[in-house]
Amino acid sequence: MRRSNAIRYALEQYTSYRVPNIQCAQSLWYTQSTNNSFAVWRRRVHNSAALAQKRPERVQLSSERFPQLKRGDFARVSDRDLQVFERLVPSRVLTEPDDIEGHNVDWSGTCRGDGQVLLRPKTTEEVSAILRYCNGRRLAVVPQGGNTGLVGGSVPVFDEVIISLSLMDKIISLDEISGVLVCQAGCVVDKINGALEPHGLMTPHILGSKGSCQIGGNISTNAGGLRMLRYGNLHGNVLGLEAVLANGDVLDCLSSLRKDNTGYDLKQLFIGSEGSLGVVTAASVLCPRIPGAVIVALLGCDSFAQVLQTYDAAKTMLQEILSAVEFMDRASMEVVQENLQLTCPLGAHRYYLLVETSGSNAAHDEEKLNSLLGYVMENGIVGDGTVATEPSKVQALWALRENVAVALRRDGCVYKYDVTVPMSRFYDLVVDTRERVGTDVTRVVGYGHLGESDIHLNVTCPQHSDQIFDALEPWVYDWVAKCKGSVSAEHGMGILKRDYLYHSNTGPAVLLMKQLKKLMDPKGILNPYKIFPD
Amino acid sequence: MRRSNAIRYALEQYTSYRVPNIQCAQSLWYTQSTNNSFAVWRRRVHNSAALAQKRPERVQLSSERFPQLKRGDFARVSDRDLQVFERLVPSRVLTEPDDIEGHNVDWSGTCRGDGQVLLRPKTTEEVSAILRYCNGRRLAVVPQGGNTGLVGGSVPVFDEVIISLSLMDKIISLDEISGVLVCQAGCVVDKINGALEPHGLMTPHILGSKGSCQIGGNISTNAGGLRMLRYGNLHGNVLGLEAVLANGDVLDCLSSLRKDNTGYDLKQLFIGSEGSLGVVTAASVLCPRIPGAVIVALLGCDSFAQVLQTYDAAKTMLQEILSAVEFMDRASMEVVQENLQLTCPLGAHRYYLLVETSGSNAAHDEEKLNSLLGYVMENGIVGDGTVATEPSKVQALWALRENVAVALRRDGCVYKYDVTVPMSRFYDLVVDTRERVGTDVTRVVGYGHLGESDIHLNVTCPQHSDQIFDALEPWVYDWVAKCKGSVSAEHGMGILKRDYLYHSNTGPAVLLMKQLKKLMDPKGILNPYKIFPD
Repeated sequence: MRRSNAIRYALEQYTSYRVPNIQCAQSLWYTQSTNNSFAVWRRRVHNSAALAQKRPERVQLSSERFPQLKRGDFARVSDRDLQVFERLVPSRVLTEPDDIEGHNVDWSGTCRGDGQVLLRPKTTEEVSAILRYCNGRRLAVVPQGGNTGLVGGSVPVFDEVIISLSLMDKIISLDEISGVLVCQAGCVVDKINGALEPHGLMTPHILGSKGSCQIGGNISTNAGGLRMLRYGNLHGNVLGLEAVLANGDVLDCLSSLRKDNTGYDLKQLFIGSEGSLGVVTAASVLCPRIPGAVIVALLGCDSFAQVLQTYDAAKTMLQEILSAVEFMDRASMEVVQENLQLTCPLGAHRYYLLVETSGSNAAHDEEKLNSLLGYVMENGIVGDGTVATEPSKVQALWALRENVAVALRRDGCVYKYDVTVPMSRFYDLVVDTRERVGTDVTRVVGYGHLGESDIHLNVTCPQHSDQIFDALEPWVYDWVAKCKGSVSAEHGMGILKRDYLYHSNTGPAVLLMKQLKKLMDPKGILNPYKIFPD
Repeated sequence: MRRSNAIRYALEQYTSYRVPNIQCAQSLWYTQSTNNSFAVWRRRVHNSAALAQKRPERVQLSSERFPQLKRGDFARVSDRDLQVFERLVPSRVLTEPDDIEGHNVDWSGTCRGDGQVLLRPKTTEEVSAILRYCNGRRLAVVPQGGNTGLVGGSVPVFDEVIISLSLMDKIISLDEISGVLVCQAGCVVDKINGALEPHGLMTPHILGSKGSCQIGGNISTNAGGLRMLRYGNLHGNVLGLEAVLANGDVLDCLSSLRKDNTGYDLKQLFIGSEGSLGVVTAASVLCPRIPGAVIVALLGCDSFAQVLQTYDAAKTMLQEILSAVEFMDRASMEVVQENLQLTCPLGAHRYYLLVETSGSNAAHDEEKLNSLLGYVMENGIVGDGTVATEPSKVQALWALRENVAVALRRDGCVYKYDVTVPMSRFYDLVVDTRERVGTDVTRVVGYGHLGESDIHLNVTCPQHSDQIFDALEPWVYDWVAKCKGSVSAEHGMGILKRDYLYHSNTGPAVLLMKQLKKLMDPKGILNPYKIFPD
């Protein structure tokens, strides 16, 4: 294949690119030899330091921040209740404020509940006993996984009883041949991948928070993550679920079968319903093989039409090996350069695409990627590009994309919007936002998962400004609704987005959701105040 | 790569294999050049002759066959109702018995309803008006797509009003870049693929009945089909749905977004619920690119352990290009040889595997497949094998697998069971069935989709025998239930399997299903008598 001279083809020879030793999210790639002769498996390890729970000194109580919220008609936890809890989960009833503090505040430090008791069940039977009792007493509860959500969905709003799934972290079974893993809901994704790796398997989803997020929470929020372009969403990959209903009944749909069409697929109800219809206690997940080779290309484009042409070419020419198409605009690239002193190996372009392939044969994948690069360069679709196959180089390219969020924080205050829009409108939201907020802000950046049409719109300024906030909300959500986008690409509605449920759903749809909630949790004890506007 | 001499490597040179011109399901592969320089697209065309609706002379009425069934407390269609229907869907109200006959009898000729009226709406609004009226009048209805199901789910049991979706066959939109197709529910899968092909796209699922089955019916039964190993199920690939509820309300969840986590994912309720919760009227489907190359290998193994080793090796070494792993036992191969005079290019083996790859680069895929073949041959896992890349040869190998069902019919009477079991027990069902029925039958064969652990157990004899039937049912379903399998891998429960719903579901799960049914269809007018045992 003839390659344009314009492309700086890096592969192993590419050495000029450095990543400063920054104190932020880091990625580490390493190659591990195994006794399996088929493939060399590589594992991507995110250092979850950036997701460690750094709390602001004192987060305002949600009940104060949202004064329009009224506490529901629930009982308050009494001494008698505590005695019962102690009997149900001996020595795993926490009431000391210091022990509970971290479970009352969400990861982003935006929401703070006033929960007085934290329960740590180890078994499904214990969860069942807790819910049966709470339902009988009309005590509200909030199920909590790794508490890494960004919409305040996993912490109390008032004094809900917190049910932490963290001690339910057992891997129940793994079928190496079918690739089906069965585990308790509290298993941290990193731990699961650690157990899968010796068998050449990995979870079908991976997230920045994988060092602390739990599979039950992932399922309850239908987390997509970085592998979704390749492996699809959890509605397709979760084969079975066990959930405890509000009344304590255990719903055992823990099938490990890829095909099962016997009656309604009840497990789907719990995927993405944010713990409001039941508490997920175990799951059966279809796990793919770890790819033998991962290659990354960073490409620069000078029009959004070229971005879409590149994406289309990548989908067609890389097909089965394409595993990510990530997008950054120039402002995103500038912020990692200015605030974190990262170096971009390409010249200045309006847009950048990070294209990743994952396959079983490195030579084949390189050849396919070379064909793509030749095509986009020769046709003037891409102005500049670089490719990395060696793990540290791959990591260096990913670091540019993954550190945008960290870099933005250094601007001061960040207004963040994670939404999906039709691909043809993907970047229009950023353009229109810039026009709306004018020069009052430090910057407006757009980056995200192009493959899923998931744009992260971020607006920064030195400190919070009511004027800027009011210019952004609900304008951004209105904009998204007008083009039939989704106001929540990830994380669900929680407390922070509940007022915008109708922006992405029709009236009859919300009505049916409410009917389902009423049917399955008639007393409304499961994660109240979330999802639905008053 | 060193290749064992034992393998007869066919590729284009393989010429000794002939397929007789049999009057049965045929496949035709052809290569089509396009003006897209990225890939050569190939399309697989199934001749649906085998699925043409050949009815027995007179199928017994289901109400007579199942005398324990009692007609529900529904109104009967009156002249006044017919006048209203005529107003709602002018000139599309059929009442002549000859016009309705084909819609009263299911494809397999097993079930026969006594529907007196067939309605043919063209729009969602018409479906809405029909259901609103029927719900008000308490008239039972059965939604009907291509009527290709095998459990009697798409035909009336008594005199339900038949709502045929066949005229709702419009393709609404196609986004070439994202690959998202939006269409009405009555679109036949073949028609959809015809529209997708010029854009280099195809449906994520494909079925033997694709010449007549409709996307709405596929969704309502969560059809898996031949591409499921590669592209996953419809729960993952359907991005949005429009459905009309029992009361006529239109539920518009017709999102085209890959990520949307705003409230409960209501569309999942309609996937696989057999039209009992609402009538699917339109869908948004994520469509993959047509692969540039398809290669097939037929391999012979002499123990089931070797079958599993081969499957494991294929999953590991072919990873991203693996698109099918189909299984046949020796009896399956014998029946296509004896009854259809097909020729198997391999010698006699206890088991056969058909391994298909679909990728974007033929040379790469051949190399990967060669590596696999080298590994399994050199390690004595596979005794014999042949590979085909040329379309007619690929088709010839597939013909062996696809004609098993047709060949079995020539034995006379066939008892068919399509179930999923854990992969480790995949073939045990066949072994145990042989032991149970002894020598009273012509043959017991096992074939199916190994990749999804979906085994087709078939028992043949010259004519129906109560003794054999009683030996098989409910014994087969009990066997499946004991090993936590699914009594319905495909097609759902319909009327034929409803008595076995508890075999694959717990009591609390069935209770919740019934509650959902009651909530969404309080008068029970939607496809009554199906799914749930009395």
